[in-house]
Formats: sequence, C-alpha cells, structure tokens
Amino acid sequence: MPITAEQACAELNALLRNTALLSSCGNLLSWDEQTCMPPAGAEHRANQAALLAGLAHDWATAPRVGDLLDLLEAAVPAHDPDSPLAVTVREARREYDREIKRPRRLVEELSRLETLAQQAWIDARKQSDFAAFLPWLEQIVALKREEAQALFTGGVLYDALLDHFEPGMTSDALERLFSPLRAELVPLIAAIQDSPRQPDRTLLERDYPIDAQRAFATAAARKIGFNFEAGRLDEAAHPFCSDIGPGDTRLTTRYNARHFPGAFFGTLHEAGHGIYDQGLDAAAYGLPMGSAVSLGIHESQSRMWENFVGRSAAFWRHFYPLAQAAFPAALKNVIAADFHRAINEVRPSFIRVEADEATYNLHILLRFELERPLISGDLKPADVPAAWNAAFHRDFGMTPPDAAHGCLQDIHWSFGGIGYFPTYTLGNMYAAQFFATARQQLGDLDAQFARGEFTPLRTWLTENIHRRGKQFPAGRLVEIVTGAPLSHGPLMNHLRQKFAPLYDLS
Amino acid sequence: MPITAEQACAELNALLRNTALLSSCGNLLSWDEQTCMPPAGAEHRANQAALLAGLAHDWATAPRVGDLLDLLEAAVPAHDPDSPLAVTVREARREYDREIKRPRRLVEELSRLETLAQQAWIDARKQSDFAAFLPWLEQIVALKREEAQALFTGGVLYDALLDHFEPGMTSDALERLFSPLRAELVPLIAAIQDSPRQPDRTLLERDYPIDAQRAFATAAARKIGFNFEAGRLDEAAHPFCSDIGPGDTRLTTRYNARHFPGAFFGTLHEAGHGIYDQGLDAAAYGLPMGSAVSLGIHESQSRMWENFVGRSAAFWRHFYPLAQAAFPAALKNVIAADFHRAINEVRPSFIRVEADEATYNLHILLRFELERPLISGDLKPADVPAAWNAAFHRDFGMTPPDAAHGCLQDIHWSFGGIGYFPTYTLGNMYAAQFFATARQQLGDLDAQFARGEFTPLRTWLTENIHRRGKQFPAGRLVEIVTGAPLSHGPLMNHLRQKFAPLYDLS
Repeated sequence: MPITAEQACAELNALLRNTALLSSCGNLLSWDEQTCMPPAGAEHRANQAALLAGLAHDWATAPRVGDLLDLLEAAVPAHDPDSPLAVTVREARREYDREIKRPRRLVEELSRLETLAQQAWIDARKQSDFAAFLPWLEQIVALKREEAQALFTGGVLYDALLDHFEPGMTSDALERLFSPLRAELVPLIAAIQDSPRQPDRTLLERDYPIDAQRAFATAAARKIGFNFEAGRLDEAAHPFCSDIGPGDTRLTTRYNARHFPGAFFGTLHEAGHGIYDQGLDAAAYGLPMGSAVSLGIHESQSRMWENFVGRSAAFWRHFYPLAQAAFPAALKNVIAADFHRAINEVRPSFIRVEADEATYNLHILLRFELERPLISGDLKPADVPAAWNAAFHRDFGMTPPDAAHGCLQDIHWSFGGIGYFPTYTLGNMYAAQFFATARQQLGDLDAQFARGEFTPLRTWLTENIHRRGKQFPAGRLVEIVTGAPLSHGPLMNHLRQKFAPLYDLS
Repeated sequence: MPITAEQACAELNALLRNTALLSSCGNLLSWDEQTCMPPAGAEHRANQAALLAGLAHDWATAPRVGDLLDLLEAAVPAHDPDSPLAVTVREARREYDREIKRPRRLVEELSRLETLAQQAWIDARKQSDFAAFLPWLEQIVALKREEAQALFTGGVLYDALLDHFEPGMTSDALERLFSPLRAELVPLIAAIQDSPRQPDRTLLERDYPIDAQRAFATAAARKIGFNFEAGRLDEAAHPFCSDIGPGDTRLTTRYNARHFPGAFFGTLHEAGHGIYDQGLDAAAYGLPMGSAVSLGIHESQSRMWENFVGRSAAFWRHFYPLAQAAFPAALKNVIAADFHRAINEVRPSFIRVEADEATYNLHILLRFELERPLISGDLKPADVPAAWNAAFHRDFGMTPPDAAHGCLQDIHWSFGGIGYFPTYTLGNMYAAQFFATARQQLGDLDAQFARGEFTPLRTWLTENIHRRGKQFPAGRLVEIVTGAPLSHGPLMNHLRQKFAPLYDLS
C-alpha cells in the first residue's frame, strides 16, 4: 500500500532527526578532543569518530531516504516553495545527493585522519614545525582532492568543497565579491598606515590576570545574550563554538595574561556563533528549518557581535567602567577614548584571529588564493610555506618569522576544512549589510548599547535570521532581510565611517 | 560455503570490538554529563544516550553473533578452557544470552531515564528533597524490576541484577560472606568506640585550599602509577572513574576546603580504578581478554590503593612531609602519628564515601538489605527513607538529619545501579586477600611505600589481575592469585591488626 505524503514526511523527518542526533554525538567527541581529551586518547578517539561518521553516512544515504524524497518531490505544491515541507525536501535532497557521492571508505578515512591530524597540528604549531605537519597535510589534501572529484559537477574543482560550507557559492562569485573589496580595502589600509595619529597598543599588553579575563568575558557574553544555562565557555588551542544540540552550545577561547583583546573579542565572536545556535528553533532540531543557513551567515553573527557591536564606542560606554574595575592595574589611568582607539588599531600582523577588522580580510583573501591551487594540484603541500610567505609579504609588507605565525597558525586544514576560509570574509560582508539594516529598523542602536541593552538587536537577529533556519538560501536571505543582494559596499562603508575619525582621515 | 573457526573468530572479534567502540562513545556522553554538560542539555543528552544504547543493543544481539557463537562453541577445544578463544566464546555467550532477554524498548527507556534521573538526583540531593526524587526512583525501580524479570532464571529476583555487576554472584552467597563479616565487625567497632584513646579529627577540618588539594591529590595519583598522559582528574557531584578507551581513563573527585580526606582518598580510590583500566591489555580492547573481571574485582583495586596503601603509616612516611609543605597552615604543627591516627578514625557517620574502613561495610550491608525488597516489591520507593533511617539507627545508633545524609546520598539508584552496592564490600574482601598475598610475595611493602616506591605493587597487580582481563571469573581469579577462596578472614585480620595498636585494643 503506498503511503501518503504526510506519512512520507513524518518518516523522512524521523530519519533526518536520527541522523542529526547521531552526528551530534560526534560533535561532542570533537569538542572533547579539543578541550579535554588526554594526549594518549587520540587513537581511540579517531576510531570512535570514524565509527560514528561512517554510521551517520550510512543513515544519510539510506535508499529509503532517496525513495521518500522522490515521493515527496512529486507531492510538494509548487506554489509554496518556502513552506517547511518544501524546504525540508529541497535541503534534504541537496544533502542526500551530495552524500551519496562520497564513498563510505572516504568518509571514515577522512574522519580518522582529521582526528589524528588535529592532534598533530596542535603539537606542530606549538613547536612551529611545519615538517612535522607536512605528512598530515599531504594526506588531508590528497583525500580532500579525492572528495572534490567525487562531488565535482563541473566548473572549478575547489567549488565542490566550497559548496559544503557555503551552499551555492562558487569561486567566480567570490572573485566578483572579493576583487572590488580588495581594490577599496588596500588604499584604506594604506591611508590608515600613513596617518600620523596612531593608537597606543601597549595599554592592551599590560597585566590582565586570566581569572579576571575569564570572568569579564563570561559576563560580557552573558550580557549580549548567550545563555550559560544552555552552554559553557572553555579553553582550546584554536577557539571555536560547538553546537552539541538544543540546550547545549559550547564556546571556547584562549587566554594570554599580557594581551587583553585575544580572549575577550574571541569570546564575543564565539558567543555570536552561540547565540545563533541558541536562537535556532529547537522544535525543528535535526531538520533544515532548525539548522543554520551557511557558514557565511553563521560567521556574520559572530563577526557582528565581535566587531560591529563589541568594538564600537557605544559598547564600551557601558563596559569600560566594568573593565576598569576588573583590570585596575592595567586600566586605572587609561581614558575610554584611548582604550577604544587601541582595540581598533589597524596594523598588519601575522595572526588572522588577532587581526583588526580591516586587514582581517586580506588574511582571508590570501588563504582563498592558496587553497584553490592546493586542490587543483598546482600547489604542492610542501610548497605551502614559501607560497604563503611570498603572498604574505606582497599583501602585508612583512614575512612571518616562523610557520606558527604563518601557514601553521590555523586549525582548519587539519580538520579538512579546505574551502572554509572564504566564509569568514563573506561573514564580514553579510554582517555589515545586516547591521546597516538593523540600524535603520531598531532606532538608536548606539544609545541602546551604551545603556547595556542588547536584547533589541539580539531579538531582531533571532527573528530575521536564526528562527528562519534554512528556509532561504544565504543569498536570498540577505535580499529578504536587507532588500539588496550581497555586496562589498556596506562593509567598506562601515570601515570608512569607523576609521576615518579614529585616524583623522580626510 | 561454511567458514572456518578462524574466520568465525575474527568476525566475532570484529563485531565485539565495534560494539565496545560504540558503547565507549556512550561512556564519553556519560562522563560529560557529570562533569561538563550545561543543565539545559539534559534532554538532548538523554536522546543521544538512548540512541547509542539502543544501537549498541542491536549490535550486541545481532543474530550473526549468535550464529558465530554456535559455530565456535562446537570448535573450541575442551582441553583448554582458559585459552583466549575459549574465554571470548564463554564471555560473549554470557553477554549475548543476557542481552537478548532485554527488550530494545526497555534498553532505550532505561538509558533515557537514567540520564534524566541523574540530573534530577543532583538537584534533589542539593536540596535534600527526597520528594523531588521519588517519581524518578519509582520509574527506575519499575523498569529495573521489569529488567530483572526479563533476565530471571530462577532463585531470587534481585540476583538477576546483581549478576550484571558481579557475574555468578547470588544473594545467598553474599549472605554467607557478609554474615560472619558483620558478626566480627560489630564487636570490633564497639571496642574501638569504647577505647579511651580517640584521635583528634579536627586537624583534618582546617583550611585546606582547594588548589593545593588538587595539586597534592594529582601528585599522589601520579606517584602510585596513574598515567596522566592517558587520563585526567575532574570534579563531579559523585566521584567516579570512567574508562573511555585505551589511552583515555578519567577520574573525578569533589573538594571541600575544610575537609582534607574526602578529595584525597577519593582521588586515590578512583586512581585505583584508573590504574586497573590503564593496566588492561589495549591490544584486546573490546574483547573479554581486555576487559575487567567484575565490579567487585575493580573495587578491590580502588579500595586497596585508597585504604591498604593510602591509609597506611608507611605511605605517609613518604607523603607526610609533602603534605606539610602543601598545607602549612593546617599541618605545620601536627606530628605524623597524629595525622595518621586522624585519617584512620573509626566513627559511625552518615556518608558512605567518607566512612572509615570498618564502618564502611555496615553502610553497604544496609543498602544490600534494602535493595532486595525494593526489587521483590516488598519495599515501596516511597517507604525507602523510613526504612533507611530505621536500619541506620539500628546499625549506627543515630538517625540521618536529612535525606541528603541518608537515602539520597548515593548516585547509584539514579543511574539504575541497583545490585551494584554489594560489590563495594566484596571489593574490600578481595582487596584484603590480594594484599595479604602481595605482602608475602613482594618483600617488605612498607619499606617500599616509605621510600615512595609503588611500582612493585602496581606491577604485581597488573600482572596478576589487570592483564588477565576476564580470563578467569572473579572467584577463580582469587583462588589462582591467593591460593584460597574468598572469605572475610583477611579483611578482619587487616582491620584488627590495623586498629588494635591505633586504639590500644587488647
């Protein structure tokens, strides 16, 4: 007896939820690996992760899923492509078609390799020893190329990987977005560099006791709306946010007792991710309507709280007295304006996650530039340090002193995240466009921030973005929320308006 | 084409290993629940745990496992019942026959319930609110009775649960071991109580800063042989040791800044469990030859390091100067002998995990006495507090002031561990018998401890117990290692020899 569309929908939802639930066990394994796992546990963890990854792949590619999708595609009414059912079918089909192209062996091998390579990366970065990491990078690149070939549907090979992180995005589209950005960004950075008015960064390099940093960052994350009853904040070699599931979202950061901004803005950043995850519709957990749109949109949330809010003068009108109380030795005699200028210093530097809002994007463009030939095969993993350093010198006018300050600084390649980096600059662009719209719709945001009121913005983000899940692809979501397609304009406007007064630019 | 015994063995091993690997993911979920999980994550965690528990049950009860066991049972040579193959078949059969009697629905329901009930127990204990926990206890007892009935093979219903924790053990056999123990223990405790020479416990109730306690306990656990490269120590509401897998064994404890023994001996105790897990044969992971014999034998290891080693005068000849350096405010003017007498004070008290070596066993006998009617149905969960308090008053001469100091103190029932408690006193008895043998075979153990040498004892335990996995059932292992069946004699000898001089008993 054939089943009804309603029955098929219920069955598909149950299968999708179960796969998500299983994958979420893998998320916990991964969070634990980066925060708690003792070093000798890596081999067993790799076996655990590969087991769950293989199993989740089996479930995601079960023929029954394909059958249900066939049935439902015939049943979905064409007149309502944004209904929850239509969205479920569209996104589940996308995921299914993608997953069935990835051989199970490759899924398991990648999972094992990524677990072990992350541990190897942690050690190699600590020792700044690229040679120690090279064999891992070679294996990762080889498997990711194999994966890209399996997923390839024409065009540029790299796009098959990019599409996983930013559905529908291509290298060409990125070029069209990034080229004008670079063209306007480079002269702005040069003008800032040439300004005679430079901030005093040394006030951020005083004694900031780690316990006080932890308490201050936690309080700020709570204040902007991260719910610690449903989350926590830990330390990790490379900060990240992990969504374990409804009621369990975890942030990480890393502390330096002589550098304030790293842990603080890192925490705001991850809290931005966390607020997105906490804002998803828990009732639709495991379904497209309860899932984040894309990594670029995810990053728009973290970058917005970190930079558009967290580095604003208004934000510090509320927080600066608290910072002075938390760090009296460092800040007692520092006026708020000098502090605000210091945390907004624009200066070429080696480490992406510590970069300012302007130069940050050059870090991303460099990675995007190297990843494409890495996947096409034109750049060998062994040649990455030289290529990195040459490109870095071209863009930043200086050469990394060692691999830890160069191509070994990021965890991404070790977990197979090739194609991930472009979403960071996309995130900045989305954030600028969303934030400009929020400003128009929410009245005087600066006055709200200065009073310590972040609920209006957070609620606006939850309603306009978080609660919509994957209802709209990223590009359409931006148009629906902001009334315009994504462009570099709002980001450049934001940067110019912010830095012109700080640096006395004409 | 029929397969050879060798092929069947390889296939069975692979299936057993895979099930163990999956279950070990559940172990991490459980560890995390008790150490890290934010409160709002409990519902999702219950879903995750139930999913993995149901899946592991499917794998453990796969018809193919039964077919392979049938085939191998016919092929195992009868002349060598202790060979790895024979052991694998014997233990896998035992496990398989047990698991197929447990309906999948029950396995999943129990898993969900246990996750949620543990969280409820944490809150209820904190508030000392038995009424808040009662609905959970009622559900647990109902499901455990259902489980016992499913597993029942005759005799006493409770034994069907007991058998899970201590294979082959029965209520009758426990009675035969525990009755003479009680008969000799009660007068010994009375004599100690009557002694005019009582230690000064207040010196353990001074300022012991938690950071210093953590460092001192960690150093001691490392010194006796727990490998922190392959493990860690955290805090939990109810201390436990969790074996995640080879290279990853995790201890927990809880600190009280005004009470030294709790965290310190708790850490030694859990480290004893951890040293057992770290001593298992990693090459046989997931197979009976790489698994612990029973909870009673496991407990013999923890109780040995905690009490037979950790509370000995010889141990403190090495550690006391270090303790004085770690806790100068508390111990500067305390002589070693007074400290040693204080940590060996025998005194009726409410909390099992903080009880001395002698009265501890009365705590266990009380729980054993209540658990049997709880499972038979003769004792209703609602009547537990009254029954507990009456039995406690009879045995200890005092009444718990509240549920947190009475029937709500232990986590075990909340995770369905009914039938677990007797293994603690079994552990004390096994420990005494093993330790007496180790003393005979290893020369002057006290002199070794006083020099800070714990490797000889640890190596002896690893060779005689840990590395043997499940080769021999607990009863046979004791006979093989000590030359005699388990009895209460060695434990009573140990207690008399220890406390007679401390309390000037005749």
